[in-house]
Parts: sequence; structure tokens; C-alpha cells
Amino acid sequence: MKINQFAYVQPSHEQIIKELADIRFLSARTQKMADPVMLYRALLLKFYLEKRQSRAVRIRKVANLMATPELNAYDYTIKQSGVSKTAFYNVALQLLGFQVGLDFDLTDPLAALTKFSLPIADVADSLSRDQLIDAWYRLLNTRTKFGQTLIDQLAGQGYYAQFAGDQQLKRPLFFNGKAQAVFDTSQLIRDVVYVESSLDTDHDGQRDLLKAEIIRPANTEDGLKVPVIFTASPYDQGTNDKTADRLTHDVNHPLEHKQPNHATYADIEADETQPELPAPRSIKGSTEVAEETFVKGWTYSLNDYFLARGFAVIYSAGIGTKDSDGVRTTGTRDETLSATAIIEWLHGDRTAFTNRTDQIKIDAWWSNGNVGMTGRSYLGTLSTAAALTGVAGLKTAVVEAGISNYYDYYRENGLVVAPGGFQGEDTDVLGELTFSREQTAADYLKIKDTWQKQLKSLTTGQDRATGNYNAFWDARNLLKHVNVKCDLLLVHGLNDWNVKLSHVWHLRNRLKQEPITQKLILHQGQHEYLNNFRSVDYTDLVNLWLSNKLYEIENHANQVLPDVLVQDNAQPETWRTYQDWGADANVDTYSLADRRFTNLNENNTFSDHLDEDLFKHYVKEPSKWQHALLTKSHSKMDQHAIQLVSEPLKHDLVVDGQAKITLRAASSADIGLLSVALIDYGKAKRLTATPQVLAAQKIITGYQWRKDDLKEFTLEKKASAYKKFTDAHLNMQNRENTYRVDDLRPGQFYSFELTFQPTFWRLLAGHQLGIVIYATDMNYTIRGNQSINYTVNLDDSTLTLPLLGANAE
Amino acid sequence: MKINQFAYVQPSHEQIIKELADIRFLSARTQKMADPVMLYRALLLKFYLEKRQSRAVRIRKVANLMATPELNAYDYTIKQSGVSKTAFYNVALQLLGFQVGLDFDLTDPLAALTKFSLPIADVADSLSRDQLIDAWYRLLNTRTKFGQTLIDQLAGQGYYAQFAGDQQLKRPLFFNGKAQAVFDTSQLIRDVVYVESSLDTDHDGQRDLLKAEIIRPANTEDGLKVPVIFTASPYDQGTNDKTADRLTHDVNHPLEHKQPNHATYADIEADETQPELPAPRSIKGSTEVAEETFVKGWTYSLNDYFLARGFAVIYSAGIGTKDSDGVRTTGTRDETLSATAIIEWLHGDRTAFTNRTDQIKIDAWWSNGNVGMTGRSYLGTLSTAAALTGVAGLKTAVVEAGISNYYDYYRENGLVVAPGGFQGEDTDVLGELTFSREQTAADYLKIKDTWQKQLKSLTTGQDRATGNYNAFWDARNLLKHVNVKCDLLLVHGLNDWNVKLSHVWHLRNRLKQEPITQKLILHQGQHEYLNNFRSVDYTDLVNLWLSNKLYEIENHANQVLPDVLVQDNAQPETWRTYQDWGADANVDTYSLADRRFTNLNENNTFSDHLDEDLFKHYVKEPSKWQHALLTKSHSKMDQHAIQLVSEPLKHDLVVDGQAKITLRAASSADIGLLSVALIDYGKAKRLTATPQVLAAQKIITGYQWRKDDLKEFTLEKKASAYKKFTDAHLNMQNRENTYRVDDLRPGQFYSFELTFQPTFWRLLAGHQLGIVIYATDMNYTIRGNQSINYTVNLDDSTLTLPLLGANAE
Repeated sequence: MKINQFAYVQPSHEQIIKELADIRFLSARTQKMADPVMLYRALLLKFYLEKRQSRAVRIRKVANLMATPELNAYDYTIKQSGVSKTAFYNVALQLLGFQVGLDFDLTDPLAALTKFSLPIADVADSLSRDQLIDAWYRLLNTRTKFGQTLIDQLAGQGYYAQFAGDQQLKRPLFFNGKAQAVFDTSQLIRDVVYVESSLDTDHDGQRDLLKAEIIRPANTEDGLKVPVIFTASPYDQGTNDKTADRLTHDVNHPLEHKQPNHATYADIEADETQPELPAPRSIKGSTEVAEETFVKGWTYSLNDYFLARGFAVIYSAGIGTKDSDGVRTTGTRDETLSATAIIEWLHGDRTAFTNRTDQIKIDAWWSNGNVGMTGRSYLGTLSTAAALTGVAGLKTAVVEAGISNYYDYYRENGLVVAPGGFQGEDTDVLGELTFSREQTAADYLKIKDTWQKQLKSLTTGQDRATGNYNAFWDARNLLKHVNVKCDLLLVHGLNDWNVKLSHVWHLRNRLKQEPITQKLILHQGQHEYLNNFRSVDYTDLVNLWLSNKLYEIENHANQVLPDVLVQDNAQPETWRTYQDWGADANVDTYSLADRRFTNLNENNTFSDHLDEDLFKHYVKEPSKWQHALLTKSHSKMDQHAIQLVSEPLKHDLVVDGQAKITLRAASSADIGLLSVALIDYGKAKRLTATPQVLAAQKIITGYQWRKDDLKEFTLEKKASAYKKFTDAHLNMQNRENTYRVDDLRPGQFYSFELTFQPTFWRLLAGHQLGIVIYATDMNYTIRGNQSINYTVNLDDSTLTLPLLGANAE
Repeated sequence: MKINQFAYVQPSHEQIIKELADIRFLSARTQKMADPVMLYRALLLKFYLEKRQSRAVRIRKVANLMATPELNAYDYTIKQSGVSKTAFYNVALQLLGFQVGLDFDLTDPLAALTKFSLPIADVADSLSRDQLIDAWYRLLNTRTKFGQTLIDQLAGQGYYAQFAGDQQLKRPLFFNGKAQAVFDTSQLIRDVVYVESSLDTDHDGQRDLLKAEIIRPANTEDGLKVPVIFTASPYDQGTNDKTADRLTHDVNHPLEHKQPNHATYADIEADETQPELPAPRSIKGSTEVAEETFVKGWTYSLNDYFLARGFAVIYSAGIGTKDSDGVRTTGTRDETLSATAIIEWLHGDRTAFTNRTDQIKIDAWWSNGNVGMTGRSYLGTLSTAAALTGVAGLKTAVVEAGISNYYDYYRENGLVVAPGGFQGEDTDVLGELTFSREQTAADYLKIKDTWQKQLKSLTTGQDRATGNYNAFWDARNLLKHVNVKCDLLLVHGLNDWNVKLSHVWHLRNRLKQEPITQKLILHQGQHEYLNNFRSVDYTDLVNLWLSNKLYEIENHANQVLPDVLVQDNAQPETWRTYQDWGADANVDTYSLADRRFTNLNENNTFSDHLDEDLFKHYVKEPSKWQHALLTKSHSKMDQHAIQLVSEPLKHDLVVDGQAKITLRAASSADIGLLSVALIDYGKAKRLTATPQVLAAQKIITGYQWRKDDLKEFTLEKKASAYKKFTDAHLNMQNRENTYRVDDLRPGQFYSFELTFQPTFWRLLAGHQLGIVIYATDMNYTIRGNQSINYTVNLDDSTLTLPLLGANAE
């Protein structure tokens, strides 16, 4: 078990005194105590709720802790004249949830602290009064065995709730730069408003109204202005799973020859002229009182955490969703504007109404005007999109696994390439999935024809026939217009094959040109949320970040947060900080004919055609296809791919960034596609990319508030022989770029450069690097099972690897 | 999708009027309305919250529903002069969460209702005022698409919360015989007390104090007396997973010869003399105010559901758990008494103290004295155990997958046979797992030696060497002393290989001799909770049951609940009611040499010995062993078992109860074990025995209260070829009974009767019944890999099947 903590801010002793007084751990009386032992006893007794708990009960709870192998903590404070470092940390470990005997030994707590990567005060064996205060402060800000800081766990036990009647307690309250759970979540107020956007996407002659659902602390009714966490989620009002499933495209059809073109970017640039807009609704009155409320099903647990800490949360699903106007456009500027409209209202720059008909204006009078966005996937995409507009009021976004260019989500180098797990999905399918107006019968009756027309235009525009970049996709490239004004925290899974790594890579590199601070967290998950893990203080990092950006607390978030935080793939619970991603790597180039690579099946040509039965089997079970393709053992795919495997590595090899491969290759037909995967060969228990539950309902985000499962990426139960860590695909007719189509002469060799998904991957010493060159990818590309032979001239083909450190093999 | 509902009670029209007024759907004004259309509009508007929602908002929500293909529901009530059956059910389906177009068509809602098994009023096309009221009542009591009754879903939306200030609203409030969510869960009170038991299991000269955690409605402070739902969970205060894992017994060792005995029951009967007990603590004062409170991690969601409905909930972990005295005894009467002690306190018959030291008495003054127990597995076991004592105050228990005899949990017919998934577990391992006093360092220091001694006595007593029934196990047979006074609801999974079906079978049959009402629910899960499913109204059934037993509401629960409710294994979402389980079956006996059975590998002898490599492989992956054993295809187990397969069945065959097999068999050694499995062969998509999440956080158990996932046992994604539906194991030296050991002469034939786990299993027409006879069971028995050959004389061996209906093949 390793507990990594990156969100701790080191304050001065004076600041510590002040903060401990703020949270009521030091009182006027205890601040005057000179004797460390007496103070220690007071702190320990304070640790257990005073409200509704007698002193006898609290003494027993302290006495349940062992300070030395002989003395319990209460007796220790009676019988000893000083507080020893060993006793302090023996008790500290128990308060943090560690068990004597099982997790540590009372004779040597420091060994356990070191093993778990927990902080130890740099003091001699006996703590002075001031050292005790500092150590206690650090302890409250240390993470427990169960994935929360000790102060957060205490808050969940009711520590702050016991001061509910104390008007002097600060609300909001910050401790170590992070907002504390001092707000009563049983009193949250839930309002619905309808924001009038500057859009008319359903062309009904009226500006699209957008439903927004607000959850805010009751304290706002007494004048408190709070910042807002905004999650723009097109899924939020329901999804049309079955209807969308029915639209899913067949992928078992041949790749077809494309007519060569001489397209330049000018030919396919998106037309950005905006249609004329209806006038805004007239305002017939105004009020401060909402007239609609709601109860939610799914909420983002990170948002709920902040609801206890003095933030409001707003959910809005955007155009084309239930109770809003408009249609889904899957990734255009209109969807972005339906997100920024909510921010503009929160910032006082736009009108919202109390209902859809009466035109009574209602302001976000309870908002302090500062907005931060959260959410993963489509939600993260909209956060990125909103941030890149520079909309006033948006102070940051925590972008989890966001798309930055829709072409890269549904296409790759002139090929239809699916997001992992979603073969046959496309912009039309996603549009239908999220068009939740369909769930309101009366509303859908009115909009049905408009929607079906819009759906057709998505199907046409996305052009699955060619897979080329075109004006449709150009309108869905978020990085085309960058006007970013806020700092950003980017989070992405290194095993995310749904929203692939290129999205965060390109976004991050583009942002480097802008005068903002950006931070990056790369974890070992696939498409996963990262809060509620034990090995990293993600929630605390976000708290520090949002307290800084939205409450404007001077907590040094920009300095404290690492620029790049990467979870190691080879060791569990290991997180490392870096200056950059990909920029510090040394680029090495290898010939594929290099004798360090063994060509496993000694072929440089392969057929993409499988026996019909085998093909059908693999269509049903792509995981079996992938295993046959990638295994080093002989398999039915041996003659359908070229498999190169390096010598065992002498040292660890860290691929940091974007690898490339240049293939000198020919197709036997006038069409062709190339796929390449890089493989980490070596028997090892690897981390699972989906989080495992360590303890159900263990995390308590506030007093009598939401509970969550404690999770972690844990090691596989059985060792695996290999793992694909990056790949690339290309239509051989798109060897210049994604919109230019060239002829492909059968049998003629050309050079094809494929750029892999960016990665950060450690291949352990003793492992082997594998390069597998194939064509149809059952998991991602269309599957024609065509009789095409591919030949690669390995002598003229090279692999380029960005390697971290001097350990290039 | 099928929505089965068994908890609906049919009231008279007058009762309906009264109940609708009680829940405020009819007011003094609307009760007088004669025009069904006007009343209908009023009811629809009432459906949406009046508190914090304007009339404009509510009108729009009604207008979002379509009543006919042309008219929305609001316009319908304006423009039409009557309420048509079609319009009523069009709107009803939408209120229940069904989607126009996707789930049903506005031209024929009745077809959809029939398809989903939803109720339809027996009325002509136009509803009279009274018919409308009756149909509305029925609708509120109908289950939605999302696993709750409509009234429960409304309550989750805040329907009852809007009457928070209305002192006239009944609290508790019953609707259709079921307690409603009218209690404010944000105001729940949480107390800890220490109940003094009549036990001194740790022999410290003081009666064992037992911690109990109480959660009760705030209304109890104003004089309301509430019944109590009690979950006795030894896991509740934490578990010692690692320490227990370390104690897990090795099972890869030989079966050993047992010295024959002539034991009679008198020889192994448990000594029931009770040790002398220390005097109770003197009472030094009394109070009504608790002095300790708590916050819980895991809670049972069914209990939480009842917290919103006027029940208190109490959790207690019993002797040997954190903050209580005593040691774990794994299944003895002492553990039972540590559960009944809590009930006695709740019923006013026992003392509890406010803390562990001061001897200040506190009564359960807020309790109405009626207690019902809930919980699964060990928790259910303690419910059974408590019920069988006849303790006053216990009015019922909902026993989910409870043990009724510990010997049957850890042993079978003179063999060590593990609970499924827990090879090597035994009473000592379970004792260590639940001995959570170990987690409090100071407490453990005091008790460590006593506990290690107790642990050793468990290890000795359980006697893994022989696997025989003995005095240790006799003390853990819950059915030995039956003094039951309360009605019981038994729930068990037909795929539960952890607590196997024999437990509920024997309990139920024993209870038949007692003057109580018992009900039985058999579902298709393994060891699973059943609340929060869509296809069955389990939570409503329990609500009806507990409202009757604990609030003493005359809701005809004993008549309304089916005696036996069984989920079909062959069809999803299908639940059927029966009079009994096993008692109505026709018993058919077949010779194993019958020509209807094909002996797949044509052997009547087999070796239990596997090549060492294969054995090791199967030890690591028992699921591969099981597949090789049971598949009809050739496998590496062909010569290690006898596999008989019937002709394809001409009709469905329903095995209802306890099948038996008599084998005329010989072992080549003086030791031996026999295992037999009955198999349902036939390619089919079978139900998964672990529930799948249909919709996350979709179930809302009260207003701003706990959310839960909606679940179901769904069909496998891939068809499977077979399924084991029952099995049996026997030590050949225990052919008379579980404690009598006979000699076994090598090569000598004896008759062995094995009784299978009781079941309720439908083999579909076209499927084949399989009988697989083998020895070592990698999943359950010890694994000696000994060179023993077994021979079965099939001519002299018979299978006896209890078959439901006349469809014996």
C-alpha cells in the first residue's frame, strides 16, 4: 500500500495555529497550554465528537488507542511527561485507520509510515508543544488507509456538523488551502431555470431555451455568494439507448477504392457563417424565486463532495435534450454555445427565465460569478470547448478524458476507426443517443420531423464512405479556434481506447502556446473517473485547484500541483511527477530489419483474408482475434500479420510521447489499410484498467451525505504475457493527409508514416518490445475480409521512439 | 420486460377514497368533483409537486404527456368530456416511465400493459368518476419501469416531503397496506447503547456488553413509538480479512482412512450444561439520553428504505466484535443469545447502559416493542437462530440465505465440503474474520490470549481430519431446539452454492410442524440480496409483511403473499406462485442402466488420479476442471468420471425438491468419496446468477435519501451448453450417517445413497438430463489426487427424481 499525496501545502507555524483555531481544534484555552502532553490529550479528546458524546465515551475512545506497547493513549497522557515521536505516530497510524499488528508494529511506527509513503515530522524523539501542533496539523491533512484526508474523514463523522449552531465558524472554511465540509447538505436548495441561448438550432423562430438544474447551499439565502461547478452533460436528462443501438452502423463491409483528389485545406474548410438569429424574448417581469425544482438520479460524486464545501453545482444537458429546445449537433460550436450560455448566465451576462412560457427573468443572484467545469468524456469535451471560447466567468475546467477533435474520435488517417468498444458508432448514433427530447411524448411530436432531418444531415456529413476529413469534421475540430483565458487541469487514462490519448496530447500541446497554467494527470485507467482512489489524492488536488480558481484563495495551487503527474504502469500505486510529457524524450530510430528484432513468423507479406468461419468467429469475439494476433505463440493469425519482437530489454524502457513508424509497403489491390500496434511482451501481473472496489461505501463525502466506494487499479490475478500499449491505423490512399486522396497502384511500394497514439509506457528490463503490422483491426476498423496481400519492405522501414532518460536499449 | 407484482391488496372503493384522502391525492374539494375529466386534471396536476413549483410549471409537465396521438394530457382534460380507457392508460404508461414509440404505441396502450404484465381496470371505454378514482389508486400502486411503485417513486421526488409542515398528515401513513415514506431522513437520530447480555464468553467475570447502533426517526422524540428492524451482523464492525485468509486451511492433501466406530447419536450429542454466570452489573442511575453517536459505512438498503417509513433500525455485531465483549463462537447458542439480548432490550426485558463504564441504564423508550430481523447469510442465520428461541418481541424475520445447520455449511456426509467459493474456510476462519475486537489495539491487547485459546478450540472441535458430525457440530445445529413463535419470510437463491439449498429446505420442513405462517421466495441468484429488482416487487412484499407484523396493520399480508414464490430458471423475469416446495412432486425412479441414458465414455469405472501437471493446473483453475468434467465433448476428464446423458426431453421437466441417487459402488482403496452432479444439458442463454445493473442510482428510497442501482438477473450474452443444477458428496465410510464410520473394504461393492441439494429446476423440452459421477470435487472437497479407482454397477444404481406435474419424461 502506498499513499501518495500531492495536494499538501506547507504553511508557517503561525498559519498552522490560525488554521487549527479556525477549525476549532485549538481553542482560546488550549492555545495557551504550554505542556505538550496536556495539549496532546486535549487534541485527542477533541478528535471524537463532543456533540452528543459524553467525556466518558470520548476518553474510552482515546483509551482504545495504544501509544506504546504497554500504555494506551489516554493513560500515556496521564503518566508520561512528554510526547515521544514513537507514541505520536503509533497513535497517528491508528487514527489513520491502520491496525496494530496487521499494518504496523508499536515498536516501530516510522517503518510503516515510510513503507506507506506517509509524512513524518522532522523532529527529535520528544515533541515540543509547537512541534506537536505542527505534527497534529500535518496529521489532519494526511490521507487515511481509506482514501480521504483525516480531516475529511472527521468531517464525515460529524466533526464540523457539531458546530452547526455556531455562527462564528467560517463558512466557507479553508484548511490547508482546501474548502471544508462545513455546509449542511440536508438543506441544499434545488432550482430549475431556463437559460435563453443565442441559438435557434431547431429553427422554430425562437431562441433555444436551455434547462439548467441548480443545487446550492441554503446559506446563499442569507446572502452568501458561492462559486459554481458546472457539469455540461448531454446524457444528464436520459439517453435513447435502444434507438441509438438501432442506428449503429454495420462495419462488416469492404473497404472501397476512393477517387483520388487534389484537395487542399481550403477545399474542405468549414463554413463558419452564422445563420440569422431570432430576437430574444421580451422580459415581462423578474423574480429571485425559482418556480421549479427537481430530484436527480445520477450525479457526479466529485460534485457532491463540493456541495458540502460551499460550492453550488449546476447540471445542464444542452440543446436537444429533455425540457430544452434545439437539436443535437454532435460536437459543433452550437453545442459549445449551449454550454457557455449557462456560464454567461451565472456570470450575469445572459437571461434566464423561471419557466418556458411566462418570460419572467431570474438572475443567478447567489453566484459569485466564478465557474469551474467538471466531467468526463462528452462532458469533458464540452468543458474543453467552453474553455477555448474564453467565455467570461469560466475560471477553470477539470477536463477528464475529453475529445479535442471529433475526427480523431471517429476516424483516423482517412479510415473509419471506432472509439474502443463502440464499433459502428458515429456522430449520428451519438446524436440520437443524447436527443432526450424524444423522451417527452408531446415535445417529440412537435420536433420529430426536424430531428429526423438533422439526423440525416449528420449521417451524410460524417461520410463513412471515404473516412476523409471534410468540412463536417472541420466544424468539429475544437482546436481550430483557441481563445482560452483560464487555467486547466487535464486528466486522461493511459489505457483509454475510447477517447484516445491523441486528444489530450494535441490539446495540451496547443495550450502551450497560450498564457495559461495547465496541469496534466495521466492515470492507468481506461475511460474512468479518478476520485475515490486510495493511492492518489485526486479529490484533494481538485479541491486545492477549485478553492484557488473559484474562491480565489491564495493557496499556491499553481505551484503545489505537479505540472505532469503520471501513474506508473509497471508498479501498483506509484505516481511520479514530471516537468512535461513527451518534450523531454530522446528520439531513437530503429530499422525494422535491425537484428535486435526477431521476425517471429519470418514473413514480410501477409494476407488480410481469413477463412469465412474464422472471420465470423472473430467478428463475434474480437478479443480472441486480438489474442491470436498479438500472442508470441503460434496462432491462426500467424500468416495475417508481421510480428517483430525485440531482444529482452537490458534496462527499463520508457516510451514518453508519440512514437512513429515509417513503412515501405505495398498492397496487392488499389485499396488498403495498415494497422500497427506496439506491444509490451513479458509475463507480468499488470494493472487492471478498470478500477476495483477495495471497500464498498467507505468514502463519506460529508456528514450524512453521499457515500462512495473506495477504488484502485489493482494487479491482475493472473499474469499476462503481453499488453498493447499504443497503435495506429491508416488508409493507404491517405498517405499525405486526412483529406487528400491519392491513387494506390497494386504492387507498388510507397512510404507510409503512421503516428501512434501518444503514451507514457514503461517496458521493464527483461521484457521485449513488439511491433505487429496488420491490416483489418476487428476492434476498430471496418472489416471487409477482402483478399488483399500486403508486403512490407522491412529494410526500408523504421520505428521512431521517444525515450525518457538514457536507457535507450 | 415483465413486471410482476405480488404485494397488491385489493381494497373496497370506500377504502380507496379514504386512503387517497390520507395521502392527500383527494382533498375536500376534489372529493366532491362529479366530472371525471375535471377530477382527472386535478389528479394529474397533483402528481407534480405543488411545493416550490408554480401552476405554470405543473401544467407544462402534464402537457408533456400525450393522451391520444393528437392531444396532450392537459389539452385532453380541457377539450374532452370524458376520460377514455385508452387515454387514461396512455398517460399512465408515461407516468410509469414508459416511452411513447419505444415502449408502446398511443393507439394501443392496453397491448403494452398486457405485454409488461401490468394491471388494467375492468371498465368500459369511458371511465366514470368512481372508476377513475379506483384506476388512479391502482396506478399509484403499480410498479414503474424502474423497479418501484409509482407512489414510492413520487415519494422520492418529494411528494410527501411537501407536507412536512402539515401536522395532520398521518405519520406513520399506510397506503395499500404498506408504510409510506413520510419521515424526514435528514433528521434521523443515531444512538449507541451497550446491552448487557446473559453471557460471559470471554470469561472475564463480567457479563458481556454488546454494542448496539440505533437509527430512529426524530418523531420518536415527540412520543411516537416505532417498531424496530434489527440486523445482527457479525461483519458490521469490520472484518479481519488478511488474518482470516492466513488461517485458511490447505485442501490439497489426501483423504485418510478413518477408524470405524459404532457411534450413536448419544455419543456425539452436545453437552448443553451452561457455565455459571457472573452477576449482572448494578444499576447506578438511569437516563433517556444516549451519550454516544455514530456514522455508518455499509448499511442494508432495505433497512434504509424503512427508515423513511417510520421504522427504527438497529445494527449489532454481537459477542467478540469491536466495542463489545466476548469472543466469536461461530454458530453456537451464545451467538444466538447475543442477538436475542438486543431484542429483549427493545422489548423492555433487559438492561442496556449508556457507556461501557458508568452503569447508567437506558431504555428503548422509543420502541413499540415489535422487532423484525433482516439480513443475508450469517445475518440471516442469526435471524433464524433468534426466531427459533421464541424470544418475546421478535414478531418476524426476513431470512435471506441463512444457515440452519453449520455442519451442512462446512461438511457433507462425513466429508469436508466447502461453501462455494471458499475452499479451506471453516469455523475458525470465520471466527477470526469476524473477531473485530482485534481492530481496537488496546482492547485486543487484553483479550489476545483468550481469543487465541478460543480459536484453537474451534480448530480442534471442527475436526477437519474426519469430517464427521460430532458434539461440536451438534452444538451448531439450529434446528435441534425449535421454539418458534413468529411468522417467517424465507428467501433463498436457487443458485446459492455458498449457503446451499438444504439450509432453507430443512428449516422450512421443520417449521411446517409449528403453528406459524411461513412464506418462501426462491430466486435465481447465487448469494444475493433481492431488493431493487425490476421483475419482482420484493421490497413491497417485505413492506406489506413488516407493516403487518410490526405495525400490526390489518393488511392481509398472510393471505396476499404467496406461500411459495419461485423465479423460473428458463425464462427471464418470470415468477410463479406455488402452494408448496417439493411436497407436490411425483417421485420417479430410474435405473442408471436405463437405455434412455447414454453412457458417454462407456466406462463404469474411473480413476481419481490426474497427471501431476493437470492436477496442478486444475487446482489453479477449478473452473477449467469443472468444464472438462461436465462438458459433453471429449475432455481430459473423460476417464475420471462416469457421464450419463438422457435422451432429449419430450416435455419440460421440473425437478421440485430433493432428488436422490443410490449407487452400487466400490473403491479400490480402504477410503473413498463419491460426488454426483445433475446437469441440465442444452444450448441456451441462461440467467446470470449475479445481478446486473440495469440503471445506476435509479431507485430513490425516499426524498433526498439513499439511491440504489436497479438490478436484474439477465440472460447470458453467449449461450451456454450446460448447467449443473444440483450435486451431492459422500465419504464412503459414512454410508450410514454423518457420525457413524464404517470400514470400507477395497474392491467390495456397497450401496450408497446420496441426497442432492434440494432444487426447483425446469429442464426445457429438447434439453437432456445429465448425471455425472466422480470423486474429488476441486471446488468443494479436499483434493488428494490419490490413485484410487472407483467402479459403479450401473445396473444396480438408481436415480430418484421429484417431478412437478405429469410431465415425467
